[in-house]
Parts: sequence; structure tokens; C-alpha cells
Amino acid sequence: MIELDPKHDRFLQPLMATLEQVAAIFERQLASEFPAVESLCSHVSRYRGKMLRPTLTLLSGVAAADGDLGVLESDDLRRLSAVFEMIHMATLVHDDVLDEADQRRGGETVNRLNDNETAVMLGDYLISNAFHLAATIGDADLTERIGRVTNTLCEGELIQLHHRDDLGLDLETYLATIRRKTAVLVGACGQLGARVAGGTEETAAALGIFGEHLGVAFQIRDDVFDLEGETEVVGKSVGRDLAKGKLTLPMIILLDSAETVTFADAVEAFRQRDASAVLQLLRDADATGKAIAFAVEQVEAAKSAIEGLPLGGTEDLLRDLADSVVDRSH
Amino acid sequence: MIELDPKHDRFLQPLMATLEQVAAIFERQLASEFPAVESLCSHVSRYRGKMLRPTLTLLSGVAAADGDLGVLESDDLRRLSAVFEMIHMATLVHDDVLDEADQRRGGETVNRLNDNETAVMLGDYLISNAFHLAATIGDADLTERIGRVTNTLCEGELIQLHHRDDLGLDLETYLATIRRKTAVLVGACGQLGARVAGGTEETAAALGIFGEHLGVAFQIRDDVFDLEGETEVVGKSVGRDLAKGKLTLPMIILLDSAETVTFADAVEAFRQRDASAVLQLLRDADATGKAIAFAVEQVEAAKSAIEGLPLGGTEDLLRDLADSVVDRSH
Repeated sequence: MIELDPKHDRFLQPLMATLEQVAAIFERQLASEFPAVESLCSHVSRYRGKMLRPTLTLLSGVAAADGDLGVLESDDLRRLSAVFEMIHMATLVHDDVLDEADQRRGGETVNRLNDNETAVMLGDYLISNAFHLAATIGDADLTERIGRVTNTLCEGELIQLHHRDDLGLDLETYLATIRRKTAVLVGACGQLGARVAGGTEETAAALGIFGEHLGVAFQIRDDVFDLEGETEVVGKSVGRDLAKGKLTLPMIILLDSAETVTFADAVEAFRQRDASAVLQLLRDADATGKAIAFAVEQVEAAKSAIEGLPLGGTEDLLRDLADSVVDRSH
Repeated sequence: MIELDPKHDRFLQPLMATLEQVAAIFERQLASEFPAVESLCSHVSRYRGKMLRPTLTLLSGVAAADGDLGVLESDDLRRLSAVFEMIHMATLVHDDVLDEADQRRGGETVNRLNDNETAVMLGDYLISNAFHLAATIGDADLTERIGRVTNTLCEGELIQLHHRDDLGLDLETYLATIRRKTAVLVGACGQLGARVAGGTEETAAALGIFGEHLGVAFQIRDDVFDLEGETEVVGKSVGRDLAKGKLTLPMIILLDSAETVTFADAVEAFRQRDASAVLQLLRDADATGKAIAFAVEQVEAAKSAIEGLPLGGTEDLLRDLADSVVDRSH
């Protein structure tokens, strides 16, 4: 779970207790009479990390209910939180296949532990169960909205694949891609969490925008970890973006601002998949620093989106949650 | 589309016209503003083949509505048909990744044309869109049932992967696997097609059982094609089951009935992935013939499931459809 200041304990304690319930729903949903399926799902449960998506879903529910912690008892809200975590897990499992990654949350990935085929099918099992669980909430409109979110998410992944090794990728396309791939889902946590808790349209929309900005910031932070982090600290394979020809914000900033000679060096280092040369060039140009600054701007935009809204005392916690998306060690 | 006797034209003509509308819904659902996504979806549209699933969905609707062809105008029934075809397409795209197949419906597979990563994500895009389209029907219970079907389908695929190279795989486990992997979806076409058309519980249940038996028969026929068919005739890569260590009914029958020497030869040929030796042993034992006979029994069981039910004059067509699942050249 995300680490936040104990001053928020009035909200954090019940939130953490509810996340346990969300985890129980998650596991119950994936239960199978077949031991082979069971053991795969247990392995995936180990991937559970910061729980950003269910945390934001629950917290948005509380905020939209004017701070009433009673909404955490809502089975619909808990299920919705589990749905978003399950969708996220499915993308992790399939991303690991795409990235040929070996490590995830300090353990072996499914593709490494079993094989790519099993990882593809396990991801499908998670997607299917996420939709099934969403449908059990019994609100067709909600299910449709979730389907729209995952359509967008998959489009984002396809566009990203399409731009592999595209050194002409511009900032606008990069942002449109990570918005689709990552931010729209986090936005849905805010928006639909508020909606299921009975919040107003205005509050739901604002928490949706809050979540989208958080999602963009989160992805940029992750992209920087992938470039300069260490597997032991980050807990998952790093250097995968470069290895797979995936251009992210620091590299886009570098290429955009570089003089002719540096530009040629950067292109060459990228093409050669020379991680240390790329990192040196990024550091010389302060490109990772500028990328983090961009992420911080997104955090500030998130805070602005909820400014002045009555959120039942959760305002401070939401702001700290926003900051934590960039200020994290892994 | 499945080829059937022109004597059924009273039903077949409107069915074929409606399948065109179903195809239009399918394409509209997958439309994307991104050319890269668009072109992938157009490629997948080429995979459209026998349209067994949407045909059975529509026909079950007509049968459940006592032969009233007016139900073919129902947008819900058309969408449901498109949903089932889309789920099927998603499984084809991911199966081709799993099987490392090159050919599908006489053209290149997505994994071959692009790469495995794109095929994984395109399959996800299809699954997501199938659920989204299902949710637009606006019936939460229906969406939940569809989710349950795809949960089962993925479980079937995972169990199949688990039993790769398991020469001790018995008939019961094989049948339980193909039931989950293939038959439950075809059963849902019958059952939910009838349900959406306003049929009685009894009719829907009977058409569900009809579809399940058809699904089992269809899978066995496909498994035999994979062993003894030719790519040019079948239109897709063959010999993939053996190449991937997948035991299917003919091989199970062979191993089950073989004398000691033949058994050892069969195990050896299977382990060596020696397709011609496997085929020779299967032919000597008439194992593919016995597998087809088993499939024919399933077709007969399908017919029995709807015997005596009032189906508005579609009885004959349903029986011919059942026969066509085994009596086909590809």
C-alpha cells in the first residue's frame, strides 16, 4: 500500500482495512476448482503492490460521500475497487510478456516462471474475471463505462507498439498514448468510485480528472525508474523500454532539445540499445530531471482539479496521495 | 458462412442478410481513430469464416420465438451475435500466438504479419470490445452470464496448457477441457440467443445443451483436421497440436487401445514430434475414424436435446446445422 503521513489515519486506517476486504474479493473471484489455475492466481496475488487504483477508488467514494466512512461498507464500491486492480494486474501480466521481463515485485514473472503462452492466457483469465466481477455489480451503464476504459487502454498499448523504434515520436503522441494506456484507468477509479458512492456528477468528473493527471504522473515516474532505477530497488526488470525500442519522456525531451552532435549520439545510443550511454546523455541534458518536473506539473494539475470542491475532509489526503505518485523510491 | 441445403432458404436467406448486419456491428464496434488499430482490425475481419457462433445465436433466437423471423430485427440479438463472434476472434488471435501458427483462413496470422506483442494486444482489444458491446445491450444479468462463459473458456485454455506433453491425459480430462475451451461458448450462443429473443427457460436450456454438444463435435473435427488436414485445404496452419505437445482425441484413443509395442511407438513418435509416424499409427488403429465417430455421437446428442421441442419450423435446419459441424471439408 502507498505510504502516507499518519496524520491521515482517521481515513487511512479504515481504508487499509477495506483494502483487505478488496483483496479477499479479488481472490474469491479468481478461485478455480483446478489446482493449476489456482496456483497461477496465487502467484499473481503476489504482484499486489501499491494498490493505487483500489485506494483511489475507495477514497474517491469517501470523498464523494462527504467524508462518510460508511460507504466503505458498500459491496459495490469494494467490488469496483477489485475490478480496477484486476484490470491492472492483467495489463501487468501481458506487459511482462511484451517486455520479456523476468522480475516483477521482487519475484519471477509468469512468462519467466511458466512460459509466454500461460502468461497470455492467465492475463485473459484476469480480464475476463474483471468484467465478470464488474457485471455482478448489476449496473449495465457502469459495466459499459468500464468496457470503454479498457477499449481505450488496449488502443493505447497498440499505439505504443506501433511507435516502437520511432525516433520521431513527439510529445503530443507520447502523452496521448500514456493517457490511454495508463491515465484513463486511474481516472476511472476516481470518477466511478465517486459515482458508485452516490456522489454528484460534478464531484465524479473532478475526481476523474484528478485521477487522469495522477495516472500521467505515475507513468512518467515509472518510465524514469525504467531508465535509471535498479531492479533490486524497483522490484521489477528495468531497462525494458530501451531494450524494446520504447521511447519515453526523458528521451523525447533529450532529442527535442539536443544540439546536432548530441542528437546524433542519442539516436545512435538508442539504436544500439546502449543503456549506459543513453543514461549519460540523459543526465548531461538533465532530461530525467525535466521529465520528473513535468510529472510534478501533472500532480499540481491534479490538485487544481479538486480545488474548492467539498470533499468531506479528504482534501489533504488526496493532495498527499497525489504527491506520493512522484515522491516514491519504487 | 456454413453451407446448408437450399431447402432451408426460408430461414437461411434472412439469416444470411442478418449476418451482414452482425458483421457491420462487429466492424463499427472496433472502429478506431488510429490508423494502426484500424488496419489490424481489418485484418482480423478477414478471419471471419463459418460464422457458426452468430449463426447459432440468430437461429436460436428465431427458434425460441416460434419461428418468427421478426426477431432478426432485434438489435440486442444482433449485438449478442457480434459479441460471440468477437470473443471467438479474440481466442483465434491468442491461440495463434500460443500455437506459433502462420496461417489462418488462407492469410497470414497477426503474430506472423506483425509480431507476438501486437497479437497479444489485439486479442485484448477484441476481448475488451466484446465486453463493451455486450454491456451496451443494457442487461447486467446477460453481461454477467457472458463473463462467466469467458472465465470458463480461459480456464479451459489454462488447463490445456497445463497438460502439454502429458501422455497420461485421459478422455475425461480431455472432454472437460474442450467443453470449457470451446463448447461452453457455443452453448451460450444457443442459450442466450434464445433468451434475448424472449424464449422460455426450457427452450433456452435445450438450445444451450444443443450448442454444447455441437461445440464438442466441432472441436474434435478441428483436432482431426489439425492431424491429417493440409494447410491449403483447411486454410490454417495444421500439425500445431503435435508441435506444441497437445494431446487430442485421436491420440488419446490410440494410446488407450494400443498393444504394448504400438503404445511405445506412439509415445516415441509423439515425443519426437514425428507427424507422419503419428499419422500412420493413428490410421492403422483407425483412431481418427473413431474420433470422428465420437463427434457424430455428440451431433446425435445435440439433436436429441431439442427433440420434441416446439421450435417454429427450424427443427430441420438445426439438425442439418448439427450435421454440418462434422461433415465439412475445412
